[in-house]
Amino acid sequence: MQFRFSDKSLALQDSLEQFFRAEILPRNREWHAHTSKHGAAPPFLAALKAEARKRGLWNLGLPDLRDDQPGTRLTNLEFAPLAAIMGRLPWAPIVFNCNAPNVPNMEMLQKFGSVDQKRQWLDPLLEGRIWTAFGMTEPDVASSDARNIRTSIRKDGADYVIDGRKWYISGANHPDCKMLLVVGVIDPDASSAAKHSVVIVPMGTPGLEIVRPVPAFGRDREFAAELVLRNVRVPQSNLLGEEGAGFAMGQARLGVARVHHCMRSLGSCDVLIQLMRGRASGRRAFGRPIGEFANVQDMIALSRIELEQARLLVYKTAWLLDEGGAAAARREISMIKVAVARTFSAIADRAVQVLGAMGVSDDTPVSSAYTAARAMRIYDGPDEVHLRTLYRLEPDEVAGDSAHYLLGERGL
Amino acid sequence: MQFRFSDKSLALQDSLEQFFRAEILPRNREWHAHTSKHGAAPPFLAALKAEARKRGLWNLGLPDLRDDQPGTRLTNLEFAPLAAIMGRLPWAPIVFNCNAPNVPNMEMLQKFGSVDQKRQWLDPLLEGRIWTAFGMTEPDVASSDARNIRTSIRKDGADYVIDGRKWYISGANHPDCKMLLVVGVIDPDASSAAKHSVVIVPMGTPGLEIVRPVPAFGRDREFAAELVLRNVRVPQSNLLGEEGAGFAMGQARLGVARVHHCMRSLGSCDVLIQLMRGRASGRRAFGRPIGEFANVQDMIALSRIELEQARLLVYKTAWLLDEGGAAAARREISMIKVAVARTFSAIADRAVQVLGAMGVSDDTPVSSAYTAARAMRIYDGPDEVHLRTLYRLEPDEVAGDSAHYLLGERGL
Amino acid sequence: MQFRFSDKSLALQDSLEQFFRAEILPRNREWHAHTSKHGAAPPFLAALKAEARKRGLWNLGLPDLRDDQPGTRLTNLEFAPLAAIMGRLPWAPIVFNCNAPNVPNMEMLQKFGSVDQKRQWLDPLLEGRIWTAFGMTEPDVASSDARNIRTSIRKDGADYVIDGRKWYISGANHPDCKMLLVVGVIDPDASSAAKHSVVIVPMGTPGLEIVRPVPAFGRDREFAAELVLRNVRVPQSNLLGEEGAGFAMGQARLGVARVHHCMRSLGSCDVLIQLMRGRASGRRAFGRPIGEFANVQDMIALSRIELEQARLLVYKTAWLLDEGGAAAARREISMIKVAVARTFSAIADRAVQVLGAMGVSDDTPVSSAYTAARAMRIYDGPDEVHLRTLYRLEPDEVAGDSAHYLLGERGL
Amino acid sequence: MQFRFSDKSLALQDSLEQFFRAEILPRNREWHAHTSKHGAAPPFLAALKAEARKRGLWNLGLPDLRDDQPGTRLTNLEFAPLAAIMGRLPWAPIVFNCNAPNVPNMEMLQKFGSVDQKRQWLDPLLEGRIWTAFGMTEPDVASSDARNIRTSIRKDGADYVIDGRKWYISGANHPDCKMLLVVGVIDPDASSAAKHSVVIVPMGTPGLEIVRPVPAFGRDREFAAELVLRNVRVPQSNLLGEEGAGFAMGQARLGVARVHHCMRSLGSCDVLIQLMRGRASGRRAFGRPIGEFANVQDMIALSRIELEQARLLVYKTAWLLDEGGAAAARREISMIKVAVARTFSAIADRAVQVLGAMGVSDDTPVSSAYTAARAMRIYDGPDEVHLRTLYRLEPDEVAGDSAHYLLGERGL
Repeated sequence: MQFRFSDKSLALQDSLEQFFRAEILPRNREWHAHTSKHGAAPPFLAALKAEARKRGLWNLGLPDLRDDQPGTRLTNLEFAPLAAIMGRLPWAPIVFNCNAPNVPNMEMLQKFGSVDQKRQWLDPLLEGRIWTAFGMTEPDVASSDARNIRTSIRKDGADYVIDGRKWYISGANHPDCKMLLVVGVIDPDASSAAKHSVVIVPMGTPGLEIVRPVPAFGRDREFAAELVLRNVRVPQSNLLGEEGAGFAMGQARLGVARVHHCMRSLGSCDVLIQLMRGRASGRRAFGRPIGEFANVQDMIALSRIELEQARLLVYKTAWLLDEGGAAAARREISMIKVAVARTFSAIADRAVQVLGAMGVSDDTPVSSAYTAARAMRIYDGPDEVHLRTLYRLEPDEVAGDSAHYLLGERGL
Repeated sequence: MQFRFSDKSLALQDSLEQFFRAEILPRNREWHAHTSKHGAAPPFLAALKAEARKRGLWNLGLPDLRDDQPGTRLTNLEFAPLAAIMGRLPWAPIVFNCNAPNVPNMEMLQKFGSVDQKRQWLDPLLEGRIWTAFGMTEPDVASSDARNIRTSIRKDGADYVIDGRKWYISGANHPDCKMLLVVGVIDPDASSAAKHSVVIVPMGTPGLEIVRPVPAFGRDREFAAELVLRNVRVPQSNLLGEEGAGFAMGQARLGVARVHHCMRSLGSCDVLIQLMRGRASGRRAFGRPIGEFANVQDMIALSRIELEQARLLVYKTAWLLDEGGAAAARREISMIKVAVARTFSAIADRAVQVLGAMGVSDDTPVSSAYTAARAMRIYDGPDEVHLRTLYRLEPDEVAGDSAHYLLGERGL
Repeated sequence: MQFRFSDKSLALQDSLEQFFRAEILPRNREWHAHTSKHGAAPPFLAALKAEARKRGLWNLGLPDLRDDQPGTRLTNLEFAPLAAIMGRLPWAPIVFNCNAPNVPNMEMLQKFGSVDQKRQWLDPLLEGRIWTAFGMTEPDVASSDARNIRTSIRKDGADYVIDGRKWYISGANHPDCKMLLVVGVIDPDASSAAKHSVVIVPMGTPGLEIVRPVPAFGRDREFAAELVLRNVRVPQSNLLGEEGAGFAMGQARLGVARVHHCMRSLGSCDVLIQLMRGRASGRRAFGRPIGEFANVQDMIALSRIELEQARLLVYKTAWLLDEGGAAAARREISMIKVAVARTFSAIADRAVQVLGAMGVSDDTPVSSAYTAARAMRIYDGPDEVHLRTLYRLEPDEVAGDSAHYLLGERGL
Repeated sequence: MQFRFSDKSLALQDSLEQFFRAEILPRNREWHAHTSKHGAAPPFLAALKAEARKRGLWNLGLPDLRDDQPGTRLTNLEFAPLAAIMGRLPWAPIVFNCNAPNVPNMEMLQKFGSVDQKRQWLDPLLEGRIWTAFGMTEPDVASSDARNIRTSIRKDGADYVIDGRKWYISGANHPDCKMLLVVGVIDPDASSAAKHSVVIVPMGTPGLEIVRPVPAFGRDREFAAELVLRNVRVPQSNLLGEEGAGFAMGQARLGVARVHHCMRSLGSCDVLIQLMRGRASGRRAFGRPIGEFANVQDMIALSRIELEQARLLVYKTAWLLDEGGAAAARREISMIKVAVARTFSAIADRAVQVLGAMGVSDDTPVSSAYTAARAMRIYDGPDEVHLRTLYRLEPDEVAGDSAHYLLGERGL
């Protein structure tokens, strides 16, 4: 066990850090000004992407990247600190083609896609030319247990016919979104974990309608949409992977999505602490910088402690993924989902308080971080579902020795 | 960065685990029965110590151990998981001669002791034959800032004459305690960080009086005492280290003491979770095992998450100590002091609730863990002091880039 | 001491409850649909206001209402439960002319306005025909300590000339807003509590510019604006009350505003609990209604306990206001500010979790309640300022008897 | 609704306050010194009791006191603030014959006792001459659901024969304890709420054995014992009330016991805040009184806010009891059980932190308050049981109007 990154990893962190500071962060206001006016990315994005790719900072979140695919293949652990740097700004991951929901979708296509599917969808994704979405969550069922998903996928001749309703489909509302991976029930009579399939539905397919954007807390950071699929027809060659494997594939994808979400959130937390610290020096009340008040000090110091702990657990999870895959990291993925969402929420809450009226306004990233953090305790499975899972993974008895800890006459 | 212990370390963990399970834990009730009746360790302790030493499980917490001294020299990181195993029972560290306050005292003697001092005090300590105490905390000043210590050490001829009052002096009330390291002011005119010295005072020196035991929350897990020193005279050769270096030496010792305290607490937490989990299966209410209630599940799962995060930060701190000494680990030592004390407190609180009336009783280790955890938020410096330190270590501005995160016209 | 409302008060509660249920609540969706489309209140508002007035449910929040003014004069305590009913919907208070910021402004004009000022501004306010705003908070100073306000009010001939910048000025952005009460420094050399005055500035006065709306967490529930005043000239007859009395008047106004805000928030909390309870029955997960999970039960039950406690403290505060005015209720006003904001935040947080993705969406009032509750911990003075005040009001020693509680030899 | 106590009540509060301050509190150290040495009350207790009775401050907690019984009959609401004053010291209620478990036992005997039972047990209790205990909780079942109690009460001729084991039986270990009210199963075939009876068992009855004291967190504030009943034989005339009514009687008794426990805890909290405030002035750290640090201020101010809220809910509960009996106050009794235990715990936790090492020691009442507060979250039913009850009392739907709060197309 040791806590220093490899020289290769440190060099990448340094390179990304410099690029972020020199080229990305200084364009943050321009990004916001442009997108809020035009609803689309500003022109400078293309140049930044090209530069990132030139510097070897492209497709960093794909441990299964092949040599003939563009980008730099890294382990999950190598990617973790890089994702944290990108996570400082909600739009920075796009520069590196490391943004959700595209990366987990690329991962799925890489693993389960046919040659044709890869050519048609994975290649442009790897080039950063298109967006895609993953259609799992449904409004009418508790989607936290994905076995509840009930969109129907019916075979009809050489086609699938899909009917259902989805919401909180991140990316579906992005102007460049070209395709949707739809999870639905293909075999209603199969066991609950074997009845779902994933089908590729190109945007524009008749019957697929974007009903509305679905912002979280009134803000749209995710290009999330509510969709209806009415009699949507695609050829059976659009099946991704095996029939009936949809639940398992969805769980695997969710694992990656959750872990990346956690990694990026570490960077958001770093920014929040930095802003609190700056405010502590810059703002005066009752005749002193507010950083001289012990309650402000406590808020900042506790945030740092909690963040360091969350960071280490995220790193360990990435390492477990590298060592043994999703199965080896199952407990830790649930752990970081809960731990990071809570840490992010607690830190964002403190940042609002330390920044006061400014923290409530849109003049800093604090107010939108506050609601993003809150949403994270629901997204990727509400905390309660992960806690339930973790309880079940807790061994009931360790080699029969509990009794020795009891000093009275009675057992537990 | 990687999260697997070395084979050497894993082998030691395995060896200690087996010894703990086979030889120590099964004697737990006997230990309690004997000590509560006789106020002293049961006869089997000597045999356990001999066996531990035979197995190479002796003096594991002394990274500066010399080859000619008894025991196995380990790094802090190697020691950490071993200390956690020992920490499952309050008395288990004694078996391995790894118990407080002796280990940090050995560390001090090793580093600063003269040849004579080592022969007289360190050698029997390394053999596990005596106890010692460290006399810093005073009731009349906020000892959390050690510069406040005001016991006086006055030169008189070839002697020092010491006057003062100390309390919460762990170990001083142990029947085998032979010596006290007293921190006091030797040069009242020096700067606050350069006025203290540490002097060796053998128990039994005239004028040194144990006024009373000082239990925490009515329980004495630490053999802690209140002491008065009235005109206590020792030769100047009893000075440990340099004159005026007392504050620095005390801080260094506290670092080790805090880290070991944190390591052991990890093991206490493991036991608490194990007992909660056992209770969740074994106890029924409203027609079901209480482990089927989601609030009980949440308590257990959250405890595990928090513990894993605390554990990783403790390991990282140990690694930093190995890499760069106390200076390199300064922030992390304050972090784990706060994080572990809070984690331990939260887990113990939940364990009381899950065990109910049994958790309140003395029939399980839960009730005394609950108060020990609470005391930990005061001992080794109250949380507030460490948070203050951490705030001060938080950089004010990272390369001037905060402004780019602000989207309005105003700065922080 | 007794906890039953008078028959008169109960009859009013009953009347308002019926009106709310029959006439207001069923129009809630229509209200939202209309305002989100047109940015202004729907036509049915006028009829609702007329009906409320006809039923004697008009101007209920003005304990100093005169007999010749329209509406029903009530005590603060009588108003409290009515305000809580209105508070169930953000727009309902408007129906009863009981909405912020108009009511505290009416209170100020009633108390300090000249005959002409009352005729010009109070009379149409009492009729519910105009809106007004109160311009205190400034972006560049910690306005939580109102003595920091630094907008300048300079005499020039028969006029005042005002320069400054304000933000979070609730109501200023409402289409019907006709007037702004500006707090500024009129005598820079006076003591910090005697240097401010309040001056009436009609909207449209040259130099008064609404720079932008200032939503909280991206949402505008308050018609809040950022304003600049550049060389704004009004006649000296626009002074409200005495010169130099601005700080005291502002504090008095804040008291009323805070208390009403707290009263209304009780109603928001009632709705949140009701929605959680409905969801607990209506939503299934893992084969059961989620209300059968103990953690969901705990969230709902704790919310009810906390709300009942907050409600009683709000009622007591209202009673103290009635009995002895703002001076008598000083402590309690600070207490409810903190207690209600925290209770509201905690309940809204739980409601988000229980409603899941739906709680994050805009399909329920939960997500906007969540951010409104969070903002409340900043608005009307951040918690920290009130806690500081409360600490200072805590007596240091009660008749010298602390010593008797100490069992050792030492004092505190 | 009004928040001022009647003149009669205020006069009693004043009288009790004076007596407490002048006669009881100054003897606190002497009480502790004597009881810790002799295990029994000091001689001055008798004189204090006589004086309290002379002043009309006797048996204040019995709303059903008859005119021919000694003491002053008060309503629950009148008693509440008096109990809070007594609650400042654990032993003070004894002076007024208002201590647990005797008062709830008197209440039971008053309500359900036969003429003979009253003469034998109630009369000496009313005189403060004996102690009694209530034997409900059993170690082997979740006694939080009293229907689980399984001690057997078997008819045998004219006798009952009782077998079972009880623990946490407060008062049973008091030297003056003369009688035990035993709850057990008299009709195993009856429904779970109709199978228990309560039987009077005099201490000293053969087969009734006090196995051991059962301290909570190592301290015995309650004279609590573990008892075994083996073939214990008493005449059937020792049945209290009806056969099969034991569960209902036990619940009724618990209601009173819980409410009184809550009332007294308010006084404990007052003392803790007073001690924190004194420490804030008296202790210096980093060059200032610790009361100048904002985190210490926050801890004290928050404690006051929480206490005021808890106090009002306790008062309201007492008022409901007076107005409509236990049925009317059912929700509120569960509410205060949870709210007061949590408030007391939170305040005691802060007091430990503010007092530091002194708060951990036995030199102040803080450390024992800390564990007493923690135990309160278990005693009288763990929080979880009360929260479950409260959830069930929360109405599912208020007149069908939830739907109007929803703005989307979907229901909850």
